[in-house]
Amino acid sequence: MLLYPGFTALDLVGPHYFFASLMGAKVDLVTTGQDLSPVRSDLGLAVSPTVTVSGATSAPTILFVPGGSAGTVAAMRDDAIADFVATRGAAATWVTSVCTGSLVLARAGLLKGRRATSHWVARDLLAEFGAIPVNERVVIDGNVVTGAGVTAGLDFAISLIAQLRGRPYAQALMLQGEYAPQPPFRGGTYESTDPAIAGAMKDMFATVTAEMAAIASSGR
Amino acid sequence: MLLYPGFTALDLVGPHYFFASLMGAKVDLVTTGQDLSPVRSDLGLAVSPTVTVSGATSAPTILFVPGGSAGTVAAMRDDAIADFVATRGAAATWVTSVCTGSLVLARAGLLKGRRATSHWVARDLLAEFGAIPVNERVVIDGNVVTGAGVTAGLDFAISLIAQLRGRPYAQALMLQGEYAPQPPFRGGTYESTDPAIAGAMKDMFATVTAEMAAIASSGR
Repeated sequence: MLLYPGFTALDLVGPHYFFASLMGAKVDLVTTGQDLSPVRSDLGLAVSPTVTVSGATSAPTILFVPGGSAGTVAAMRDDAIADFVATRGAAATWVTSVCTGSLVLARAGLLKGRRATSHWVARDLLAEFGAIPVNERVVIDGNVVTGAGVTAGLDFAISLIAQLRGRPYAQALMLQGEYAPQPPFRGGTYESTDPAIAGAMKDMFATVTAEMAAIASSGR
Repeated sequence: MLLYPGFTALDLVGPHYFFASLMGAKVDLVTTGQDLSPVRSDLGLAVSPTVTVSGATSAPTILFVPGGSAGTVAAMRDDAIADFVATRGAAATWVTSVCTGSLVLARAGLLKGRRATSHWVARDLLAEFGAIPVNERVVIDGNVVTGAGVTAGLDFAISLIAQLRGRPYAQALMLQGEYAPQPPFRGGTYESTDPAIAGAMKDMFATVTAEMAAIASSGR
């Protein structure tokens, strides 16, 4: 699981809960930094990495990239991160992301011709990197598994665990994590949210999405 | 938000995402340790605190306690933690928890006569501390707001934000976090899970729940 400055902590911690609960699993948090200092997420919460890029396993079962906003733009502009994601992704059994993490996979060339999703503000940008954007919460295309924005990481992780260990195992972890969601209000998608709220939220992210689009057209 | 060794990271990071997204909010991560070293969660992921108990604000808007298993038992046995939770809870506008964090609140004497919930394996134990266990995902009783196990932290946080800032604000953050869950399978509650799976999971937690019950009867 990749940690870079400005990642969204919940994008990562949701799937981490389910992955780290798998019997026999070893989950590494790989920092893009030079040492094992905690990595600050977009909302300030900092997580300790377990290994640096140079010490990360060469052929992971799962490569996972979380999303973010300005931090993700910076990660997409970083050739060293793109190289790491490309080489580990080529060797991984599963290539995965939540939220705008899929843009990092796309920038590294891992999503060409693949069906994939992302946070709703950035989903369509996947096409500019040669991927096929899909408006679904979890998208599985061969060994590429992508989740939509932030909280979709829970549905993403449970879907992936069912692929890895079967449905009863996934259901056991759903019960352990009491995953029977009851959103208190209607909403959570662009289509189901009051247009005044949804439009304002889209505007808030306009700079970030423009920067991501610029990376697609320039190649970095 | 309290950090103690062995807390469940997702219990905390779910609500943190929503709290820290509130305009003007200052979210502190208060360690029970002596310094600001990262605090290791039950599944290994370590989070950096922002302040120690001695530096924590005396009257927070929200006191929040995450759950865990063996680490939560240890926290319940610790008089200093109980004192901190009791005094900050008495001064807080909102007294809150997710998962077995409610047992820490109960042990500190904050739930007497209050309706509250917890992780399903531990919910009934609330009665032994004078609280009224309720089988609901989010329970609001006056200024006490408790969420059920782990992933209930999302529904909990959105419910609390609606109390603090109103429903449109809560819906804006639901859209930001794309909170329109689609569990891939039926389950997530004891009642909706295959009895063979649910029974095995309950047995896995039997030691922890027995230890929590023993704390109730001994007072610590």
